Amino acid sequence: MIILLTGMPGSGKGEVAKAFKKLGIPVVSMGDAIREEAEKRGIPKTPEGLKYVSLKVREELGPGAVAILIAPKLKNLLKKHKTVVVEGVRSPKEVEEFRKLFPNEEIKVLAIHSPPGARYERMRKRGRSDDPKTWEEFLDRDKKELNFGIGEVIALADYMIVNDDSFQKFKRDIEVIIRKILYFNHQ
Amino acid sequence: MIILLTGMPGSGKGEVAKAFKKLGIPVVSMGDAIREEAEKRGIPKTPEGLKYVSLKVREELGPGAVAILIAPKLKNLLKKHKTVVVEGVRSPKEVEEFRKLFPNEEIKVLAIHSPPGARYERMRKRGRSDDPKTWEEFLDRDKKELNFGIGEVIALADYMIVNDDSFQKFKRDIEVIIRKILYFNHQ
Repeated sequence: MIILLTGMPGSGKGEVAKAFKKLGIPVVSMGDAIREEAEKRGIPKTPEGLKYVSLKVREELGPGAVAILIAPKLKNLLKKHKTVVVEGVRSPKEVEEFRKLFPNEEIKVLAIHSPPGARYERMRKRGRSDDPKTWEEFLDRDKKELNFGIGEVIALADYMIVNDDSFQKFKRDIEVIIRKILYFNHQ
Repeated sequence: MIILLTGMPGSGKGEVAKAFKKLGIPVVSMGDAIREEAEKRGIPKTPEGLKYVSLKVREELGPGAVAILIAPKLKNLLKKHKTVVVEGVRSPKEVEEFRKLFPNEEIKVLAIHSPPGARYERMRKRGRSDDPKTWEEFLDRDKKELNFGIGEVIALADYMIVNDDSFQKFKRDIEVIIRKILYFNHQ
């Protein structure tokens, strides 16, 4: 089974990925695929460089490019693991590409939802270099994700975790949903 | 406060609307607005007639047309009620229009999420005349909603109810979230 993990920026995807890893389930990141591709092509891994690479691979391979890029790694992992997680899926074209590339594999979309205000606060607190510093930057970043079609991926998700309460509640909900996914799809 | 209720077809919006009504909170339907507009214009309320009217009003008033159509009714209700619910919001342009039309009113988006398989089963069981009879019809109907931009509305929702367990659990979750919305926004 391939679990495609999606969610708006700051929704809490990292925490979910961590929970899967703790169970020994490998997590492959769509973002890392772009970084590795930049390295391969000798392009600097600056925000501009990475943006260039992600546009370039889409030009060359189509809108599902990142899915194609990580497919070999996924195939390898699926030899040893029943379940693999892909973090950072953001477009219906990518989901489609995964279904095309892995026709015999169960593919489930797991979305994390968190209201805009909470996501903004979370991102300001964590302060990664590319995290928005103002509400306007936050809206811009959201807009970029939405333009990839992430809203459609979320609207059609097979599983959804709502992260709008305490961190403890979120961690409990993550465990419940992971158990549910593994239970219902591994029979 | 205006609560904008959204969700993919068959997600369970009707049940949420019912719960609000039980509390004496009026619910205005975006779909009814189109039906009333058809009546006003002397256009038959067949699926084709209604489709014609909804395209026509968008041509005349822009993509937020339905919000403009129901604004007078909403304004009236808000004279007597602290909170009014609008059912069936499906486009970010409509949300924007509501914010523009009611700049001094708190506006919250409440989304209902249910996985595709469960929505399909629910719609087949209820069998309204416009409900899909096959999986292909279901996907078509979904596509139509997604083309309005409903995915973006869902991705940016302030509150989210996940309807993927028993009906009893759904009803409990509805009550919890309604209490939360009213409590946090009526202080």
